[in-house]
Amino acid sequence: MSYNTFGREFRFTTWGESHGPALGATVDGVPPGVPLSEEYIQCFMDRRRPGTSKHTTQRREPDQVRILSGVFEGVTTGTAIQLMIENTDQRSKDYGDIATSFRPGHADITYHLKYGVRDYRGGGRSSARETAARVAAGAVAQAVLGALVPDLRITGYMVQMGAMHLDRARLDLGAVNDNPFFLPDAGAVQAWSDYLDGIRKDQNSVGAAIEVCVQGCPPGLGAPVYAKLDTDLAAAMMSINAVKAVEIGEGMASAALTGVANADEIRMGPDGPEFLSNHAGGILGGISTGQDIVVRFAIKPTSSITTPRRSINSRGEEIDVITKGRHDPCVGIRAVPVAEAMAACVILDHLLMDRAQTGGVRGQIG
Amino acid sequence: MSYNTFGREFRFTTWGESHGPALGATVDGVPPGVPLSEEYIQCFMDRRRPGTSKHTTQRREPDQVRILSGVFEGVTTGTAIQLMIENTDQRSKDYGDIATSFRPGHADITYHLKYGVRDYRGGGRSSARETAARVAAGAVAQAVLGALVPDLRITGYMVQMGAMHLDRARLDLGAVNDNPFFLPDAGAVQAWSDYLDGIRKDQNSVGAAIEVCVQGCPPGLGAPVYAKLDTDLAAAMMSINAVKAVEIGEGMASAALTGVANADEIRMGPDGPEFLSNHAGGILGGISTGQDIVVRFAIKPTSSITTPRRSINSRGEEIDVITKGRHDPCVGIRAVPVAEAMAACVILDHLLMDRAQTGGVRGQIG
Amino acid sequence: MSYNTFGREFRFTTWGESHGPALGATVDGVPPGVPLSEEYIQCFMDRRRPGTSKHTTQRREPDQVRILSGVFEGVTTGTAIQLMIENTDQRSKDYGDIATSFRPGHADITYHLKYGVRDYRGGGRSSARETAARVAAGAVAQAVLGALVPDLRITGYMVQMGAMHLDRARLDLGAVNDNPFFLPDAGAVQAWSDYLDGIRKDQNSVGAAIEVCVQGCPPGLGAPVYAKLDTDLAAAMMSINAVKAVEIGEGMASAALTGVANADEIRMGPDGPEFLSNHAGGILGGISTGQDIVVRFAIKPTSSITTPRRSINSRGEEIDVITKGRHDPCVGIRAVPVAEAMAACVILDHLLMDRAQTGGVRGQIG
Amino acid sequence: MSYNTFGREFRFTTWGESHGPALGATVDGVPPGVPLSEEYIQCFMDRRRPGTSKHTTQRREPDQVRILSGVFEGVTTGTAIQLMIENTDQRSKDYGDIATSFRPGHADITYHLKYGVRDYRGGGRSSARETAARVAAGAVAQAVLGALVPDLRITGYMVQMGAMHLDRARLDLGAVNDNPFFLPDAGAVQAWSDYLDGIRKDQNSVGAAIEVCVQGCPPGLGAPVYAKLDTDLAAAMMSINAVKAVEIGEGMASAALTGVANADEIRMGPDGPEFLSNHAGGILGGISTGQDIVVRFAIKPTSSITTPRRSINSRGEEIDVITKGRHDPCVGIRAVPVAEAMAACVILDHLLMDRAQTGGVRGQIG
Repeated sequence: MSYNTFGREFRFTTWGESHGPALGATVDGVPPGVPLSEEYIQCFMDRRRPGTSKHTTQRREPDQVRILSGVFEGVTTGTAIQLMIENTDQRSKDYGDIATSFRPGHADITYHLKYGVRDYRGGGRSSARETAARVAAGAVAQAVLGALVPDLRITGYMVQMGAMHLDRARLDLGAVNDNPFFLPDAGAVQAWSDYLDGIRKDQNSVGAAIEVCVQGCPPGLGAPVYAKLDTDLAAAMMSINAVKAVEIGEGMASAALTGVANADEIRMGPDGPEFLSNHAGGILGGISTGQDIVVRFAIKPTSSITTPRRSINSRGEEIDVITKGRHDPCVGIRAVPVAEAMAACVILDHLLMDRAQTGGVRGQIG
Repeated sequence: MSYNTFGREFRFTTWGESHGPALGATVDGVPPGVPLSEEYIQCFMDRRRPGTSKHTTQRREPDQVRILSGVFEGVTTGTAIQLMIENTDQRSKDYGDIATSFRPGHADITYHLKYGVRDYRGGGRSSARETAARVAAGAVAQAVLGALVPDLRITGYMVQMGAMHLDRARLDLGAVNDNPFFLPDAGAVQAWSDYLDGIRKDQNSVGAAIEVCVQGCPPGLGAPVYAKLDTDLAAAMMSINAVKAVEIGEGMASAALTGVANADEIRMGPDGPEFLSNHAGGILGGISTGQDIVVRFAIKPTSSITTPRRSINSRGEEIDVITKGRHDPCVGIRAVPVAEAMAACVILDHLLMDRAQTGGVRGQIG
Repeated sequence: MSYNTFGREFRFTTWGESHGPALGATVDGVPPGVPLSEEYIQCFMDRRRPGTSKHTTQRREPDQVRILSGVFEGVTTGTAIQLMIENTDQRSKDYGDIATSFRPGHADITYHLKYGVRDYRGGGRSSARETAARVAAGAVAQAVLGALVPDLRITGYMVQMGAMHLDRARLDLGAVNDNPFFLPDAGAVQAWSDYLDGIRKDQNSVGAAIEVCVQGCPPGLGAPVYAKLDTDLAAAMMSINAVKAVEIGEGMASAALTGVANADEIRMGPDGPEFLSNHAGGILGGISTGQDIVVRFAIKPTSSITTPRRSINSRGEEIDVITKGRHDPCVGIRAVPVAEAMAACVILDHLLMDRAQTGGVRGQIG
Repeated sequence: MSYNTFGREFRFTTWGESHGPALGATVDGVPPGVPLSEEYIQCFMDRRRPGTSKHTTQRREPDQVRILSGVFEGVTTGTAIQLMIENTDQRSKDYGDIATSFRPGHADITYHLKYGVRDYRGGGRSSARETAARVAAGAVAQAVLGALVPDLRITGYMVQMGAMHLDRARLDLGAVNDNPFFLPDAGAVQAWSDYLDGIRKDQNSVGAAIEVCVQGCPPGLGAPVYAKLDTDLAAAMMSINAVKAVEIGEGMASAALTGVANADEIRMGPDGPEFLSNHAGGILGGISTGQDIVVRFAIKPTSSITTPRRSINSRGEEIDVITKGRHDPCVGIRAVPVAEAMAACVILDHLLMDRAQTGGVRGQIG
């Protein structure tokens, strides 16, 4: 079993290799009657698109999405939606030298071991280029969420890049889209830019941490005990290339807390329960509380670097690997819109799951 | 859709409430011909069983497992295995006062909001008692792994409990089963014990971090891109009650690393590739490398504490909640065998998935 | 992969062998707040129960169902429901002689070939006793359907038993429950009874055809193109022991029809579209039309007979097989409540699926 | 939930509408290292292609398949395979008059009721054009089966078309590919041709029955009790447009048989068990016996005919419907390669499922 499908009710299957003719997503389970256009999806694609600043790979891909099915006269029909993105700027010759060698820290060796054969060009299926298809699928999810839960907002942003940390006291979600780092602190952009310039000049790369905040999520989403909302968010984020950790709310810091400190106390507000804190990150027992959902994840540094590293090749010879080609010095940056897309897919999936079981009816308080 | 099933090839469905007549697991997809007995499963149950030390809940449950189907004359038949554990020490009267009140930090309120009705006794379905069924299912997985991959070992242990941290320099997996904390450092047990005594006397509880190490896992397990091995491990751990974060290898620390530092360099050893480090935690591109797999997770402090916390009840009245009953001051302790069980299930699931697609044949090096 | 689970939203997993300690169904995806009791389920069990007339096996099983989880204070909680039926009248000694021999026409040989090991007692997992668990799960589905679609009625009945055919002109659904054949023609009962007596005295058995009619099914159920309503009904019926064919509406007779004859013409009635005929059996393009859904299936004769048949045993020796034990001369009779149960599960599953995708909103006409 | 995916291990998702820009299949779970080319797939496409004889629709579609992913240097890589077929001969103006009217016997009305919106051009998603994607997916399955079970052969053929019946005494599988009816009796082709000419001239259409025979299927395939091999074959065939019934082996005729007559007696042959008859159609207890697998299904007459039929439109007005456009007078003909494709997918799916659970090891006899 390979498994290129994500989701239960709202499901998408991604396909395509980095340097093949095209890649895309087959999206199923979409409610009918939702307005959807290529232009709408393109806005999301453009946020993830390579080559938009000096801080990302210089590969130039327009990432133009075509809707091949499932939309008629501007609205979804409830049938499968095929989204195709043609690859246009494949420079596969850059990769001739990695046809048989394994980059340390990269999936080259494990794909070789598992499958015996792999499309080595640009990393083939293991390339982060696959995430373009996720963003396309996520745009469909956003369109449906826009129709069903108009007040819901999903915002991703960087909170760490190597030695640089977001100053939480300066967090401003309004600043996120105005800088190439999706950084919610306009005042720190220059420093982050200088830092990453240094990394790149050192022929190095660097890791990052990204946070996604979902505002306006209705309570009651989550299907205990094996499709909890946090379980699915964790799986969604961990499935993104190079992610090594996922946190909800306090995350790893929970290990240090006491029960007295960790309790999110509750009072009655004019519209229902109000929580006095959000250590839980908006999820209790795997079910959304109605508070902001806060997910955070760490992404390791790009393994394709021009500093030589010791490795082997498929003939079993010991070699030094230097990866040329066009790579992101910090893949974490472009992971931000990918994470938003995955969050949108998970939230919608659970909204539809909940609609199936409970009809969306909520238990009353008061 | 509710979702009480975990796994793809090796699947288990858990059922039962904390204070209902019984709970259990329906296990499907088990290969035939594997020796399995109630005694074998019981060994795993006993590691998780409540009431075995002063550091866990004083509820006395024998957690005796009965095999009701799927095993004939001592071996699995390939049909569904039903494992049932009868509850014997329900003291539901302890919970009368939480029938309508919501414990801060607990799933009480979200179950109420989602379902409108809940079995409040002992937390009902949201109780960590559900994890007994996981351990039973995990024991079946361990039996099958023992037949298919005899050298594989799965060991869970605590690495943090509140302010107490494992000294990595003293890590000794051999010590894990000789103390009530599953602590791989015999010399630190007394200090951890004293610390937890203090927490309990303060009418408080505390969080924890647990690590699971899988030794002897064959390379090639993992089904990119949405059933990566780390994705499924993350989902498995995050689905455990009170878990708020999951890390693979370097985990959140990856965000601070550079590509040069993070690269796990490779040399040829007598039996094939050898990695000089394991920042990746044994998984690259979602596929096992053959190195130790290292998963870590944080578990929040028990929300049921006897220190009063502000909350509301189902009538919308503001109240102070004190949770009596018998609760673990650190639920993280008993999560150790649960995490081992989940890891066993994930590894076996992927072994069977891989067997389906590739027949278990590996790509050659050299 | 073995696969003991049926359904997508409303899912049940059956477990248990014919002569094991118990069997049952783990039911998941049930909406919360639906009244459900053991007594309610028992009514359905009693219709399928063995030993109720001379025309069925003389094994005496009370088929008493226990609800072990998922119901609290008389209503479903939305969590997994475990239904257990203990076996009480196992006479395994009857089966000692089939431990190693293969009954012609029976699953003995294929279970042996596939699994290498099998619980041979009473057919083990391949016994029609498994259908008791289906009836229990179907009763849960009926309870939920009763809450969501009160006007829906599911009625199964025999239309053929060997040489005996229902006279369609005399079809009277009101007669179904008043005779041991679920025959919708009171006047034919004696003839059917005499016929079956003859079969049994000849040490023989006989096949049957059963029809299920679903009245009051709302239009719009069915998920094209691989979970069409008729696809799922076909799978549901074909999964019942000994079933060899499934028909919807005209069924196999469709092959002889012309397009002019087959067209179910449509007129407008006071409440919407009205069809002038129902060759389609209530399903077009895999989606319900709102007409009666008509499913029919054939069940082969019991393979366990006392007339000797040539066969082999597991040592490869050629033998003659005579099957003693207590068997139904026509397993088709007791398949009627099983088919109703399966139909209920499929209809509910699709109702929940549809609720997820469309919210149950229907396109307007006029 | 809509559901455009078929299969468990070997899974394909079809997408696309009759008159959209393209349609195709996303195929997942394919073993790596299997030779696969567009030319190979094309051979299968050409058997189903429209416009190849006067007896099928005159729409001219080259049905040229492109492989967009999952194949590298001529072999499968184990990643998702995207197969795309561009539509070239859409004459949507033919369908303007069915934008709002409902053809009797067609899915027009149920799609309208379910989704509120539909791509009416050429039937949109409900068109049999979707089956082109199945044939493409089936070709991938055939390629894999060719590698794993070289002796397996899948042959579909017509056994009935309206009043014309195959004379079983003259059945010759070698004749199937030499006539436009996939008729295994060369001598009857002229009569069938004349008969269908008459139907077409009468502005009518006609139903058909098709049989698929799988030779060389290994024993042991089938996953009881809800993924039995016959259950999955029934679902596969019933999911094909216009199919109204599925039979395995004796099929509906089983209802008339006695146990003595129905028993497929067994003797020992030089290579293992030999069955003296095949009433069961090669499947016992849902598991293959190693005999020929025989599946038969009925397909109703094309609902798009030029003889006027009474109906309504979406405004609720009563109308007479005459369907112009280019339609098959007997859709059953082109269903033959579709059914072969579905059978190939089911057999491969079960081969991989079985490999996962049992490793393909068979129980021994003798």
